[in-house]
Amino acid sequence: MSFNPNEHQHLRYNPLKDDWILVSPHRALRPWSGQTETPAIEKVPKFDPSNPLCPGVTRASGKVTPKYESTYVFENDFPALLEEGPEPEPSDDELFQTKSAKGTCTVMCYHPHSDVYFTSLSKKEILDIINEWIKQTEILGKKYVWVQLFENRGQMMGCSNPHPHCQIWSTSFLPNEARITDLNLRKYYQKHQRPLLQDYLEKELKKKERIVVENKEWLVVIPYWAVWPFETMVLPKRQILRFTDTDQAQREALAEILPILVSKYDNLFKCNFPYSMGWHGAPTGEKLNQCQPHWTFHGLYYPPLLRSATVKKFMVGYEMLAQAQRDLTPEKAAALLREQQNVRFKTE
Amino acid sequence: MSFNPNEHQHLRYNPLKDDWILVSPHRALRPWSGQTETPAIEKVPKFDPSNPLCPGVTRASGKVTPKYESTYVFENDFPALLEEGPEPEPSDDELFQTKSAKGTCTVMCYHPHSDVYFTSLSKKEILDIINEWIKQTEILGKKYVWVQLFENRGQMMGCSNPHPHCQIWSTSFLPNEARITDLNLRKYYQKHQRPLLQDYLEKELKKKERIVVENKEWLVVIPYWAVWPFETMVLPKRQILRFTDTDQAQREALAEILPILVSKYDNLFKCNFPYSMGWHGAPTGEKLNQCQPHWTFHGLYYPPLLRSATVKKFMVGYEMLAQAQRDLTPEKAAALLREQQNVRFKTE
Ligand SMILES: O=P(O)(O)O[C@H]1O[C@H](CO)[C@@H](O)[C@H](O)[C@H]1O
Ligand SMILES: O=P(O)(O)O[C@H]1O[C@H](CO)[C@@H](O)[C@H](O)[C@H]1O
Repeated sequence: MSFNPNEHQHLRYNPLKDDWILVSPHRALRPWSGQTETPAIEKVPKFDPSNPLCPGVTRASGKVTPKYESTYVFENDFPALLEEGPEPEPSDDELFQTKSAKGTCTVMCYHPHSDVYFTSLSKKEILDIINEWIKQTEILGKKYVWVQLFENRGQMMGCSNPHPHCQIWSTSFLPNEARITDLNLRKYYQKHQRPLLQDYLEKELKKKERIVVENKEWLVVIPYWAVWPFETMVLPKRQILRFTDTDQAQREALAEILPILVSKYDNLFKCNFPYSMGWHGAPTGEKLNQCQPHWTFHGLYYPPLLRSATVKKFMVGYEMLAQAQRDLTPEKAAALLREQQNVRFKTE
Repeated sequence: MSFNPNEHQHLRYNPLKDDWILVSPHRALRPWSGQTETPAIEKVPKFDPSNPLCPGVTRASGKVTPKYESTYVFENDFPALLEEGPEPEPSDDELFQTKSAKGTCTVMCYHPHSDVYFTSLSKKEILDIINEWIKQTEILGKKYVWVQLFENRGQMMGCSNPHPHCQIWSTSFLPNEARITDLNLRKYYQKHQRPLLQDYLEKELKKKERIVVENKEWLVVIPYWAVWPFETMVLPKRQILRFTDTDQAQREALAEILPILVSKYDNLFKCNFPYSMGWHGAPTGEKLNQCQPHWTFHGLYYPPLLRSATVKKFMVGYEMLAQAQRDLTPEKAAALLREQQNVRFKTE
């Protein structure tokens, strides 16, 4: 019998994190009698006078959300990071090390209406979101070395407010994921004088095994080393370091491809596909003037669902204590997403 | 204003993983209006003729679970790892690397009754579980380099069967967590000629700030660098490399301290506190004969709950894309657990 990655267990290497994932395709057959989730398809009213993210509503902090008409950005009322505060003393014990953390947490509403999303907004409105993403990344990047823009979509992903919005946490330090990615991208560049993700893009374009959707400027692919069942990466076809480096053609093409990706996700299990998504680009702040040719700007989508709108992949026991494991191969997952329609199903 | 770790944001270093965690104690005040979980307190019958883990029941595979009277061990019918199978070809492309994975997945029932747990079993019955854990670790460790014993407790942690049981996944490779811990323990040992966790134990015993419970042989502590709100580590007071190195006194003392730890967990939010737990010890298999003085055997408990039996900590957006973040300090969490009774509350 010869090795078939869609049938036989194996490990795959993640060159961005320098770690491995266990792929066990034969396990997809096992029955599931564990916890099921409520499928995410709840109807949200266009305006809810008790929702602090809606225009004109007074928030818990007493501040009033203005009657905004496009995107709206404000500082999180309960931030995990503050710009000022007393600094910890340097630690003299290597087992009890503390370091200073400075930062700011921004909330960005995508649109004044609560009942809209990438799948229903016009291209112009999506472009407004993308331009606001870029503007915020630029402003915050002047001060902070890492600007993490992310969106938690759906209650299953810890999102506590159904109004379409994302968050930006900017920090005075490189967070773990950024530090590790930076390190591995740099090692590859030193060896090949080529950005890793640019080489990866070219190979995926040739192999055509994990492509979900592409257009002139962008490729959406399930990484060869994906951990989450339907994890995707959004890669620019023309090499850029940061969101701020995108030109008008890239922004417009992104405004076209994102709603297709989200529609495919939603169509797969006929629900509002939950995920956390975000963007990674070259470090900013004091590193803005450094030469960082090893970086490629990219987007990451981490959705938890595995088999249906109600059965998710649990990253527990073995995954927490030993190593990530997946049942469905990335190639199979890509095929499933690829065959979905580009337009979202209609909710009754 | 001077720095107070219970009030002011900071980073803490995890010397086992060589990474950092963001601690934001001021954030604990924020209101929660997101997803809540069903509290885990469901009544399980002593025997369920449809539960494959109960004595005498026929499993989906057609095999019959025997009428066992103490612990019972069998091979998982839907294993993520098989002992045999075709091997992948060595990869010639560093961006598409595959490696062979061999292994075996074992299931271990703790007791013939479904309605018992560490909090209700006798010391003798708990000792039986511990001895079986050790026996399995020894048998599997002869063949495999890493034997990961773990338990997912509760539906919230992906456990699909309420019968008290754990799993053991043994592999021909060192999984990521094991490899990273091994590396960092080794580095520390090379520098200090002392096992890191032994030094850590001694310091925690003096500081007394993060102790949950201790007895003559074991210390349960919330690590200084804990990620999960009520994460704990179980450390032996006398240095040992592996579960198989424990002597009778250590086994008996473990049989006494584990039910106290679980009772404290259950008492905190008056529920069956969900968690994933497992044991880490020096690598085995072909490494059994190597000198590994940098290792200290230890247990790890990763519970997801944050504020109550229904509100968990979501490791999403920022955590997935950037870095783990916690609101409650480890010192505060340890104090909360420490003050709980050693005996579990009575379910009506
Ligand atoms: O084998 P089980 O208990 O059915 O499955 C559970 O534990 C496994 C090991 O942590 C995980 O991979 C699964 O996602 C989880 O649902
Ligand atoms: O800030 P939110 O949306 O209330 O909170 C959510 O996202 C944060 C950033 O990923 C997480 O730390 C929280 O656990 C999660 O519930």
